[in-house]
Amino acid sequence: MNIENKAVNAIRILSADAVQNANSGHPGFPLGAAPIAYELWANHMKHNPQNPGWQDRDRFVLSGGHGSMLLYSLLHLFGYGNLSIKDLKNFRQLNSSTPGHPEYGHTIGVEATTGPLGAGMAMAVGMAMAEAHLSAVFNEKDFEVVDHFTYVLGGDGCLMEGISSEAFSHAGTLRLHKLIVLYDSNNITIEGSTDLAFTENVMKRMEAFGFGTFEVKDGNDLDELAEALKAAKADKTRPSFIKINTVIGFGCSQKQGKASAHGEPLGLENVNDLRKNLGWDIKESFEVPDEIYLHYKNIGLKKAEDEKNWNELFKKYSEKYPDKRRLWDAFYSDADTKMLDANEFWQYEDKPQATRNISGTILNRLKDIMPNLIGGSADLAPSNKSYMNGEGDFLAGNYTGRNIHFGVRELAMAGETNGILLHGGLRPYCATFFVFSDYTKPMLRLASLMGIPSIYIFTHDSIGVGEDGPTHEPVEQLAMLRAMPNFNAFRPADATETAAAWYSAVTSKRTPTAVILSRQNLVQLKGSSKDALKGAYIIKNSVKETPDVILMASGSEVNLVMLAAEKLYEENIDARVVSMPCSDIFDAQDEAYKEKILPNSVRKRIAVEALSSFGWERYTGIDGEVIAMNSFGASAPQDKLFKHFGFSVENIVDRVKLLFK
Amino acid sequence: MNIENKAVNAIRILSADAVQNANSGHPGFPLGAAPIAYELWANHMKHNPQNPGWQDRDRFVLSGGHGSMLLYSLLHLFGYGNLSIKDLKNFRQLNSSTPGHPEYGHTIGVEATTGPLGAGMAMAVGMAMAEAHLSAVFNEKDFEVVDHFTYVLGGDGCLMEGISSEAFSHAGTLRLHKLIVLYDSNNITIEGSTDLAFTENVMKRMEAFGFGTFEVKDGNDLDELAEALKAAKADKTRPSFIKINTVIGFGCSQKQGKASAHGEPLGLENVNDLRKNLGWDIKESFEVPDEIYLHYKNIGLKKAEDEKNWNELFKKYSEKYPDKRRLWDAFYSDADTKMLDANEFWQYEDKPQATRNISGTILNRLKDIMPNLIGGSADLAPSNKSYMNGEGDFLAGNYTGRNIHFGVRELAMAGETNGILLHGGLRPYCATFFVFSDYTKPMLRLASLMGIPSIYIFTHDSIGVGEDGPTHEPVEQLAMLRAMPNFNAFRPADATETAAAWYSAVTSKRTPTAVILSRQNLVQLKGSSKDALKGAYIIKNSVKETPDVILMASGSEVNLVMLAAEKLYEENIDARVVSMPCSDIFDAQDEAYKEKILPNSVRKRIAVEALSSFGWERYTGIDGEVIAMNSFGASAPQDKLFKHFGFSVENIVDRVKLLFK
Repeated sequence: MNIENKAVNAIRILSADAVQNANSGHPGFPLGAAPIAYELWANHMKHNPQNPGWQDRDRFVLSGGHGSMLLYSLLHLFGYGNLSIKDLKNFRQLNSSTPGHPEYGHTIGVEATTGPLGAGMAMAVGMAMAEAHLSAVFNEKDFEVVDHFTYVLGGDGCLMEGISSEAFSHAGTLRLHKLIVLYDSNNITIEGSTDLAFTENVMKRMEAFGFGTFEVKDGNDLDELAEALKAAKADKTRPSFIKINTVIGFGCSQKQGKASAHGEPLGLENVNDLRKNLGWDIKESFEVPDEIYLHYKNIGLKKAEDEKNWNELFKKYSEKYPDKRRLWDAFYSDADTKMLDANEFWQYEDKPQATRNISGTILNRLKDIMPNLIGGSADLAPSNKSYMNGEGDFLAGNYTGRNIHFGVRELAMAGETNGILLHGGLRPYCATFFVFSDYTKPMLRLASLMGIPSIYIFTHDSIGVGEDGPTHEPVEQLAMLRAMPNFNAFRPADATETAAAWYSAVTSKRTPTAVILSRQNLVQLKGSSKDALKGAYIIKNSVKETPDVILMASGSEVNLVMLAAEKLYEENIDARVVSMPCSDIFDAQDEAYKEKILPNSVRKRIAVEALSSFGWERYTGIDGEVIAMNSFGASAPQDKLFKHFGFSVENIVDRVKLLFK
Repeated sequence: MNIENKAVNAIRILSADAVQNANSGHPGFPLGAAPIAYELWANHMKHNPQNPGWQDRDRFVLSGGHGSMLLYSLLHLFGYGNLSIKDLKNFRQLNSSTPGHPEYGHTIGVEATTGPLGAGMAMAVGMAMAEAHLSAVFNEKDFEVVDHFTYVLGGDGCLMEGISSEAFSHAGTLRLHKLIVLYDSNNITIEGSTDLAFTENVMKRMEAFGFGTFEVKDGNDLDELAEALKAAKADKTRPSFIKINTVIGFGCSQKQGKASAHGEPLGLENVNDLRKNLGWDIKESFEVPDEIYLHYKNIGLKKAEDEKNWNELFKKYSEKYPDKRRLWDAFYSDADTKMLDANEFWQYEDKPQATRNISGTILNRLKDIMPNLIGGSADLAPSNKSYMNGEGDFLAGNYTGRNIHFGVRELAMAGETNGILLHGGLRPYCATFFVFSDYTKPMLRLASLMGIPSIYIFTHDSIGVGEDGPTHEPVEQLAMLRAMPNFNAFRPADATETAAAWYSAVTSKRTPTAVILSRQNLVQLKGSSKDALKGAYIIKNSVKETPDVILMASGSEVNLVMLAAEKLYEENIDARVVSMPCSDIFDAQDEAYKEKILPNSVRKRIAVEALSSFGWERYTGIDGEVIAMNSFGASAPQDKLFKHFGFSVENIVDRVKLLFK
């Protein structure tokens, strides 16, 4: 057996051993796909194990995240960081570097958190979009400082998920030729043969999306794999799709080709059988011969040369194009807070405006402050006010454009946005109606879990949607986002608070933000301030030091409660009004601040929000009241709906007075 | 102009007038697609305006729900119920029969609530699945008592959404030849030309999915439409896809073919121009000549004959096959509560078991009680325990099977499930991991909004997932579901409560239910009872009448708090334990019951749930405590995770004692 085949088998053995040792995991995929991963990482992919952060590296996403041991084995064998055999022995244990599914920011060399199938496909498309944009912005003749591929590997499950259809249709439209999708085709899913649920002609579908397609008949044949990879890279006009026929659980007599190979340890006897079948002489688990380590090390050393060459190229580029180099540094830095702190950013016309319109204005200020801002909408830009004027459209043939047309594909949009951010160098946002945040949710969750500051513009934020009716009126969406860890859902009440929402979003380092905006006009509030950045603040205080009652609200309802407070004062009820644009951020303030805003002793509290009441009791308690939506909305003009559902000054005043009875 | 063209134009005029009158809505789609709708409803579709509930009618779903006026115009002109011109004049007004988007159960003849694009496609696939199953179960030679088509009409947006790819791939696999998809292709989306985001070869994609494809070059040509519809119906081997080239806003000089025709009134002047261009002589809005009403009426009368004939056929069938007729009646009735109330349904082995396993046992009892129960998983049946033994697989060539293989397509699965239910005659369920309820959310919402009792099995319900780690561990999902109106999220603690969850799910008439189940074993609890049907109940009471503290929990945490209560009693703290498997149902109880369970005077309260704390303060208040997840989970064995995140008897005891300090 030649060293390459041994090197492939090392991946297999380590994967099987780790799953067996953990008594948990997915051996089938690594056993089948080891040659694909090896051939790619050893002979085609541009990467430097000594510097996983090299900006011009090829990206690799394991979309089938359950095959995590495939990736961990590769990272270990190539010598990424200090990912040791001990780490592999700790696979799936508490606080280990090797969790059940790959986690970005947790394990060195992992480019994206995967596991929910298909997600990696959309993130890979986003990465390829980022590469296309950055290369268009930065490259000069003879200075291809941005020039790398994005590879993504997944199986039948990833192909069945709608998110991949959305993302691939978009990738084909954009002609992202540096995207190469590797399809591990083993004809097996958890319930059995793919015939049960998946008989479509995948190749034809991918062609329809605009991909060049290639097939590798025998996924164990490294030469055939090499040829396909070379051909895919050579196609400069379209993204590529390589279907690779593999055998799940390859090498394990009892399990290969069967669904049982997928999601449980092979069993000790079967691992021994695997060793025998693969011609792997070493009985001891987790032991890899030195010659194999040496083989991987030598490949790695050669690959390090690529970065060295790039560093030299980049140095020359920086000298020849100093402006571009400055721009590059700006792209790879955080937003300039000097400009964000300046008064200009915080000043807007004092007239009633929809916060979505204000957001549009802010975005068009931000585009100049942040040259790396890029984004767009799921076909709702005119409604979402998410277009950056004069910045062009990001299209095939015009990758310098900063306005992305995601199409009516909310889930892939959110996944691609994550991918753009993960790539580095860019700050992406995406936009749709708030009610359709439902569609984006799985990718919002991944952003939160990865700790990346993706930005989501969600307009039409309540029954204020009006005539479009309940299918288009969010109710429970705000609660859904507030309940999610490490996510900031920011629903501003006026221009100042909208600026705060954006400030918070673009300066966030590890938390994604949703900027949640009204369709309808809102007045500019007296008392709104940068304190909105604290999540909640006193926008109108009581006359007495201790208020009789605290009124809380967010967004369009803040003005209502402020007016109610005035009325109540006439009736000798001295109210404090708290604007709470972002409860997530407020919850993270220290106890002293929270006590200052919501003194424990004041238990007469009312919250008003034209969305689900769910969660507000955290602030109103058992003795308080929540005026909110406890049903879906309806189709009618916005002002009629607000009255109908109780969002009026009169109703708020009445309900407050009941607290005093 | 012949009467048919006039009849088409009547749809256009009414649609334009209603949008103009409402000063809100979407005229472009009805203007372009009116001939498609007319030709289908007048000359091909089997329906009886006098009885929209006829079981063997063809189904029609307007997937592009924003074109609601197209549907309302049809329903009015065909004389469905009392849908009057007055109703059209009230388009998009409060409490009207004509909301912004079509709503099932709200407007006569509307088969599904649509608006979120693509959803109608999945629901239509579900309807066609229902027809396939029912026809396989009931039809006899010469007695095709179930024999109808499902038509669904949508545009580019519906085709871009991933849900439609998922559903179509599934429909192709199932070879649902009675499904006919009508694609209104007008090359326009909100942001402009479809070239911006959607250049794929749609026809080729549909062929790849296994559809027969047809193209209508001129969507205004009724003959060409007729031919395509006939050809599609004639294909007995595959579902059909008809691409119909139309002009958005057809007939309006200033707007036709433009994005501006999509989502706003045409303007009075343009409506006048439309009248002129269409040769519509009547200036008065909403006025339709008698000859056109008569034309529609005559068509309707002829169509009523079809039902009459069917009624006769069905009568003979009932005589010849009385057993089948009895079965039919059982299919079209509610579940037999006598059998559900019987002790046998409530008794399970007294040993530790995962609630997912118990659910599997229950499901296999229910399959005999409810012959119309049908369902399956998104490729996780072995894990979800969602398989009905001995009931066969629902596959092309075996439509009698009751086990559906949805494939790894959670969103379409939930949409198809809704469609099966909407069709009538069947009680469907679907299943996946709880964390992937995120993917299903948009369709769960539609079920809630439509008021249909779809059933979702969500297993692996907390960090109890263990080694698979945070990508697979739900945290915020329960809060997400609890926040949604008209949805029951039921998380049982043991076998008795799991039976209650299923009892609640299958007897629900207007509310969907999620049955949320543990991966890990749980002990059978002393004190659990049918009172779980009330949403929350006292599973272990204090010794004193008024407890010192109330401990609340759901699912796997109930046993923990019961053990903690024992410990606390030893330390002279007399606790009541409340099991709250379904807070949605508990919230709907009367105040007396709620006060009985959670007396207002007892403010020392602790809730324990291995999911997000969000929302629990409704019951614990400001003075209480919630022991819950405030971060994502981690990858480790389940018992380690529970301890790590504070779900242990010791921690609960400690936290309770702090309340007394």
